[in-house]
Amino acid sequence: MPIRASGKRVKVRLDEKETDMRAVWFEGRELKMIDQRELPHRVVVVSFRDHAEVAESIRNMTTRGAPSIGAAAAYGMCLAALNGKDVDDAARTIKASRPTANDLFYAVDRMLADLKKGADPVKAADGYAQDIVDKCTAIGRYGAALIKNDDIIMTHCNAGALATVDVGTALAPIRRAWNDGKKIFVYASETRPRLQGMQLTAWELSQEGIPHSIIADGASGHFMKKGVNMIITGADRIVANGDFANKIGTYEKAVIAKELNIPFYVAAPVSTFDLSTGCGDDIEIEERSENEVTMIGTTRIAPKGSKALNPSFDVTPAKYVTGFITEKGILKPTEIHRMRSR
Amino acid sequence: MPIRASGKRVKVRLDEKETDMRAVWFEGRELKMIDQRELPHRVVVVSFRDHAEVAESIRNMTTRGAPSIGAAAAYGMCLAALNGKDVDDAARTIKASRPTANDLFYAVDRMLADLKKGADPVKAADGYAQDIVDKCTAIGRYGAALIKNDDIIMTHCNAGALATVDVGTALAPIRRAWNDGKKIFVYASETRPRLQGMQLTAWELSQEGIPHSIIADGASGHFMKKGVNMIITGADRIVANGDFANKIGTYEKAVIAKELNIPFYVAAPVSTFDLSTGCGDDIEIEERSENEVTMIGTTRIAPKGSKALNPSFDVTPAKYVTGFITEKGILKPTEIHRMRSR
Repeated sequence: MPIRASGKRVKVRLDEKETDMRAVWFEGRELKMIDQRELPHRVVVVSFRDHAEVAESIRNMTTRGAPSIGAAAAYGMCLAALNGKDVDDAARTIKASRPTANDLFYAVDRMLADLKKGADPVKAADGYAQDIVDKCTAIGRYGAALIKNDDIIMTHCNAGALATVDVGTALAPIRRAWNDGKKIFVYASETRPRLQGMQLTAWELSQEGIPHSIIADGASGHFMKKGVNMIITGADRIVANGDFANKIGTYEKAVIAKELNIPFYVAAPVSTFDLSTGCGDDIEIEERSENEVTMIGTTRIAPKGSKALNPSFDVTPAKYVTGFITEKGILKPTEIHRMRSR
Repeated sequence: MPIRASGKRVKVRLDEKETDMRAVWFEGRELKMIDQRELPHRVVVVSFRDHAEVAESIRNMTTRGAPSIGAAAAYGMCLAALNGKDVDDAARTIKASRPTANDLFYAVDRMLADLKKGADPVKAADGYAQDIVDKCTAIGRYGAALIKNDDIIMTHCNAGALATVDVGTALAPIRRAWNDGKKIFVYASETRPRLQGMQLTAWELSQEGIPHSIIADGASGHFMKKGVNMIITGADRIVANGDFANKIGTYEKAVIAKELNIPFYVAAPVSTFDLSTGCGDDIEIEERSENEVTMIGTTRIAPKGSKALNPSFDVTPAKYVTGFITEKGILKPTEIHRMRSR
């Protein structure tokens, strides 16, 4: 795939040290990020010196995952300030890159306020990115306590370091347990249609040497029946009654987990909770292009006369959730309302 | 994809009449079959005049689905007889084509016995193929009685005409209901890794004009929650206690169907029942190459450091089955033992 992001391209060899790099970081007056469109085939690092280029990198999905998008946006604002550009103009340009990721708007507004108060641009953006990583690290600590030696864990899609600057949400407890010396095995369901489980999660696991296997989404139930100790997924939105939206395919795993008495955990920072929405039925599900299902690259694989439906997310009712692993600790679905009074 | 089967190639236009053709048939001293490796992109009919070519067409999966393989084998024996070849030699050649499809051995042995009794080769093979179609037609009749006007039906993989010479097993009730004038809608889950749901079932449905949509396997639960009236799948083996093996992904649908009170039916001829096996745990699950998951054609799509597990089937316990639709009528799982005394 050609790199459509402008900016300098740097290929890196994957030795022990290089795998410690973040998905998005700032170095020598440049924003650097892993080009996620190239994974898992190549690790390509792209660099940007201009906020408009950063906006384009978000638009064309060089980086993805709401927290990583937020960090890229913060660094875009940082670059605008360093380059002496009008930060209000820069904010508009960056916000126009993608319409749905809430972190994007939150990050730009926070940077704008900080810059207007005279904050150091690099320190402010680094602080924003570090805040995400700190939350993920805390999620990892709380979640790893649930993982026993020899556990077999299943996850879905990619809620890893690539999506969250570093560490990840669903992958944070898995990383921490592994680094603590626990022997674990992870099933990564491939996550059709975009294959983030196969191409991003399995890649992250293989970078860390964590034993794992890719499986077709439809094989999840088969392997859960054979023996899985815990399921951990991320979440895109968790609402007041404990229902949550996540990548399509999550609901199925949750139902089967309950049937088989397998604990089902959702790892997400407190910022993912949307207490203004009452229940899952009120969450709007994004319908994406059917081409994601019926095409591979530019080749159609489906019959001419057939259409596909391609909802990007499903909603899992609270009754299937064992617990939400947050940076503040582990909450049961019935305990979410307590967050409101904080 | 190049046609590797030898034999004459015929391209056909798909008008109303052409869609009535079978997956495998005999015409003018030639065995003809739809090359299933070319679907859904092109309808290519290949012809064979020699039993060794037929054996090769089974081996290289020009035709697939146990009943269609059986019919092709029967016609291969027919060609050997018509060509004055040693039928015992021909039987060995054809049986060596694929190791697992039980219909293959059954069909060859039945033809061998018939030919040695002096049966007409074409009539005997036509009779074998027609027997399959008659059973599927009866399955369609019993199954269609379960389908109401405006029903939304979900199926998985391909248990259609391509797999069974004509009509199909799981698709038989759907075809019959549609031909009876019932307004129906079908969800075809794509069935990774080999995509038989997308590339064969959706193709069959589009040929007949039956309204349908392809969905990713992981979206099945989402659409079942939105509203599905009935699930119908085929089966590869149904054992004495009512547990059954079918394409990977079937078990998940059955569990979610029970959770949502959606009737779950399995359509299969009586010959699919294996009363010598007690329960599903005793069914051996075929593990296929991980390349089916990690490669598309000759291109690897998975990370280098990752492996995949690729069980071809899963086992669904009897408790999730509403009924088995057979050519003898509809059986509950608890009624299977009655077949033993027949």
